[in-house]
Amino acid sequence: MVNVSIITIGDELLIGQVVDTNSAWMAQELNKAGVRVKRRVAVGDVWDEIWQALDEESAQADVILITGGLGPTADDITKPLLCAYFGGKLVQDAGALQNVTYLFESIFKRPITARNVKQADVPDVCTVLQNKRGTAPGMLFRKNGKVFISMPGVPQEMQGMMTDDVIPLVKKEFNPSHIAHRTLLTFGIGESNLADHIQDFEETLPTHIKLAYLPNYGMVRLRLSATGQDAAETELQLNERFEKLQELVKDFLVTNLDEPMEKVLARLIKQKAKTLSTAESCTGGYIAHLITSMPGSSSFYQGTVVSYSNEVKTNLLGVQENTLKTFGAVSEAVVLEMAKGALNALKTDYAIAVSGIMGPDGGTEDKPVGTVWVAVGNTTKQLAQQFHFRFNRQRNIQLAAVNALNLMRKFILEES
Amino acid sequence: MVNVSIITIGDELLIGQVVDTNSAWMAQELNKAGVRVKRRVAVGDVWDEIWQALDEESAQADVILITGGLGPTADDITKPLLCAYFGGKLVQDAGALQNVTYLFESIFKRPITARNVKQADVPDVCTVLQNKRGTAPGMLFRKNGKVFISMPGVPQEMQGMMTDDVIPLVKKEFNPSHIAHRTLLTFGIGESNLADHIQDFEETLPTHIKLAYLPNYGMVRLRLSATGQDAAETELQLNERFEKLQELVKDFLVTNLDEPMEKVLARLIKQKAKTLSTAESCTGGYIAHLITSMPGSSSFYQGTVVSYSNEVKTNLLGVQENTLKTFGAVSEAVVLEMAKGALNALKTDYAIAVSGIMGPDGGTEDKPVGTVWVAVGNTTKQLAQQFHFRFNRQRNIQLAAVNALNLMRKFILEES
Repeated sequence: MVNVSIITIGDELLIGQVVDTNSAWMAQELNKAGVRVKRRVAVGDVWDEIWQALDEESAQADVILITGGLGPTADDITKPLLCAYFGGKLVQDAGALQNVTYLFESIFKRPITARNVKQADVPDVCTVLQNKRGTAPGMLFRKNGKVFISMPGVPQEMQGMMTDDVIPLVKKEFNPSHIAHRTLLTFGIGESNLADHIQDFEETLPTHIKLAYLPNYGMVRLRLSATGQDAAETELQLNERFEKLQELVKDFLVTNLDEPMEKVLARLIKQKAKTLSTAESCTGGYIAHLITSMPGSSSFYQGTVVSYSNEVKTNLLGVQENTLKTFGAVSEAVVLEMAKGALNALKTDYAIAVSGIMGPDGGTEDKPVGTVWVAVGNTTKQLAQQFHFRFNRQRNIQLAAVNALNLMRKFILEES
Repeated sequence: MVNVSIITIGDELLIGQVVDTNSAWMAQELNKAGVRVKRRVAVGDVWDEIWQALDEESAQADVILITGGLGPTADDITKPLLCAYFGGKLVQDAGALQNVTYLFESIFKRPITARNVKQADVPDVCTVLQNKRGTAPGMLFRKNGKVFISMPGVPQEMQGMMTDDVIPLVKKEFNPSHIAHRTLLTFGIGESNLADHIQDFEETLPTHIKLAYLPNYGMVRLRLSATGQDAAETELQLNERFEKLQELVKDFLVTNLDEPMEKVLARLIKQKAKTLSTAESCTGGYIAHLITSMPGSSSFYQGTVVSYSNEVKTNLLGVQENTLKTFGAVSEAVVLEMAKGALNALKTDYAIAVSGIMGPDGGTEDKPVGTVWVAVGNTTKQLAQQFHFRFNRQRNIQLAAVNALNLMRKFILEES
């Protein structure tokens, strides 16, 4: 089985200024291609530490993928280091220079500087991987039977290079064994209860099929992974187990695909050719963002009114001033009026409304931080539910959103 | 100088199912405390690979922080491994058991299972760090003068443990040298031009002060970092350089704090005691989400209308049907009417409106994917600008949002 190590270079990773999303994306794509990522290492812009990482990772992996450290600015030391490590010297690559020139002349429409021209310099011992999306070329090296590929850290540039060059190359050279995953999503059962519930199933799994629990936001994702030389046989065995697993958790099952809650809801609404709107207070547009992040959401989603102030609740959603005064903005009565207001104002078949206190301030003894009311419904029936979260603002927003989407999902399922 | 290595355990990291945000948070907090994170390593749920990571990281760091692999379910092998690695045996910890019992009885209000009770088992050679936010206790080990601390992977549990126990302990034992950072944000100049512009400044920096370029979403963040034994002296030297740097980039300077664009805009509006609303089409609530993610945003932000359909643009924002028909939804005329509509309907002093084509579908020859119109203004004046992005849907949404926020910021600055 071919093993990959990912080395990410950059001080910004070690002082926590940026979150490393590149590694996750790379791991995902490699995995789909049947390639196992054995380790991921992040090191700073420090000569000895990058050198050591190259030594260590190549001792245990067949392919070493390197990202970061290739920008035009002087904090980058990766290229000279690669030159020294693989025993070459920097030379200008004609293809890379052509690419840099093209980008500046035709796309950025800015004069090209000496610093940009220098980006076309590469070690003469590498094979250049042209960067169609940016100025820094990728570089492929070979040493002691191992393959090293250095890519820029800009996500879309790295992603393009992985898709166009790296994954096809790894597949061709290493003929990786088949890896398959099946993932399902449960809602309404804790990780440990779920584990007790499926303990017998788990204990009878063969060694080449693994089960993992991925809890998040009150949901638990279960992932079955199988490895094998014969693709068809592996898929078959995995499907059999996955069917059994779905049957076992059917009371809590949201979806048998690796997809977020909003996608499940979107499919449900699209199947019925219905429309959805939202009225958000405490989630502040996050539900709308989750929905509109999906391509094609405009086919069923009409929009949201984020009513952060009471005036907007009254003026745009038709919430009664009296209701606000009597029950407060975070109440069953208000959230039901918000849902009706969204159905009315945005003229949709379904609506979700949310109002709550996300923190850190704004809590009272009666309604502490984390108190959230959600209403969902159609034009003839609406219902509301109260939730109590107890975390920080960001997490409360996310939990409120996913619970609201789930409540809408259950409403639609029960309606039919 | 004290060095820390972070080991993150979990197959989900190596197949890319989750993004490792824990490491970034930990690095940030350690850095503030003057502690250098030397490396970050992610390994799977594999006995030998975790063992090897413990060996390797303890060879080069003073403190090894471990997260993940401590949940109640059977895919976790961390605890038995730590037992073997440090030569202990699992025993029940009274404090940890009390905590688990308390959580189930008083907070979760669910019956406690044998699996949960087992979470109170710890190696008898560790010092227990009680987990006030979850069921899995933290564990501290010492070996060959190195400190190892294992924490659960659930973010808020790990964060609590870091703040309450780990950082105070590291500070006390290692008396770390002083690290200070200053970060500023520029807009409207590319990384390489910026580098040319401040080349002389960069070349005269002393070795204990480093400059880093962090480009993202068309902005470039510049970070100066200084290390020294004397805190006051280090800060003084850093401030001096930082003042010089601000002066050099003043034409592009957005903020001299490490903060996002929305925070800069929020401060500006709050200082003037004004209010803001938005009208979003293609950004689908993302601008509202950025703003409402900030605590206290309700003091100036009234809300948004996400008008994903033309009907909502007409009904709630008062965009003329004729304007939509003549110019199309993605046009200067429509986005200006949306801004006026938001000012009107949400009764605010300022408004931002955005309409565009985010992809992957919906582009035409005239208006390809990535075409975005933004309008900003107050009740007497509005202006619009067109942008062309050329990336994927997610990135186009983020770029549109940050550019819209920046246009509003500049409008307010020029107004006074």
